[in-house]
Amino acid sequence: MTEPRSHAQRRYDTEHRLIHDVDVWVASASADGAPYLVPLSFDWDGEALLLATPTNSPTAKNLAASRAVRLALGHTRDVSMIDGEVELLEIDALPQERGDRFAARAGFDPRALATPYRWFRIIPRHIQAWREVNELPDRELMRDGRRKETR
Amino acid sequence: MTEPRSHAQRRYDTEHRLIHDVDVWVASASADGAPYLVPLSFDWDGEALLLATPTNSPTAKNLAASRAVRLALGHTRDVSMIDGEVELLEIDALPQERGDRFAARAGFDPRALATPYRWFRIIPRHIQAWREVNELPDRELMRDGRRKETR
Repeated sequence: MTEPRSHAQRRYDTEHRLIHDVDVWVASASADGAPYLVPLSFDWDGEALLLATPTNSPTAKNLAASRAVRLALGHTRDVSMIDGEVELLEIDALPQERGDRFAARAGFDPRALATPYRWFRIIPRHIQAWREVNELPDRELMRDGRRKETR
Repeated sequence: MTEPRSHAQRRYDTEHRLIHDVDVWVASASADGAPYLVPLSFDWDGEALLLATPTNSPTAKNLAASRAVRLALGHTRDVSMIDGEVELLEIDALPQERGDRFAARAGFDPRALATPYRWFRIIPRHIQAWREVNELPDRELMRDGRRKETR
């Protein structure tokens, strides 16, 4: 186990993942409490994560109904967890260049597929980042949409 | 993207992870549909995954109430997804040697901590395994507790 990182370092590492990673774990739940989890590709515009998934998938149905999601970037010993608010957009409702940017990063274009897809914008409200148990106490980077004080 | 694996290969790869991996992604949900997700260490006894988490954690509360969980082994481009039934055990209810085995694999002993923990046994009911989009059509390895026919 390495020394715990500062908040500033964890914020940097989380932003680096948002800018450079391609995949994110997406946890959602049905109205009656059935958990769902799947990896999806995403893009980041500096404010929100953009996802696309088939309209009939469990994730799309859960997010459309609850507007609540929990995301994980990274791997199990180096995570950034994001609880977010969900905005739903029909597939033709996104500006062309945003969709193009998503397609370039994700490696597929959900606007071009026979299966109907929707866009989901995820605006982070809580962010935590930790590697191992010694980083758990100071893991909160954002709560209720506000940055926590830098330690 | 590599050639799609056979069912037999995916089953082998999934069992290899169950036997050798240390961490698993654990998705759960509250009764009112709030998703939760966290990485936890686990042990595998050939029939069930064994987890331990603090009694007061969101995961423990969700699993105790719903008895439903969705797990992910691996990383976003090589996953084994497991939907399971949850059995709850008080921390002193597990045979000594099973707890010792968990502690050796996970690197911590939940029986020895000041914070109250509980054990959770997860019995797989549905299993899927895929790497990328070309493995999605044949991803199901187990449904309702039964192995799918080998392809």
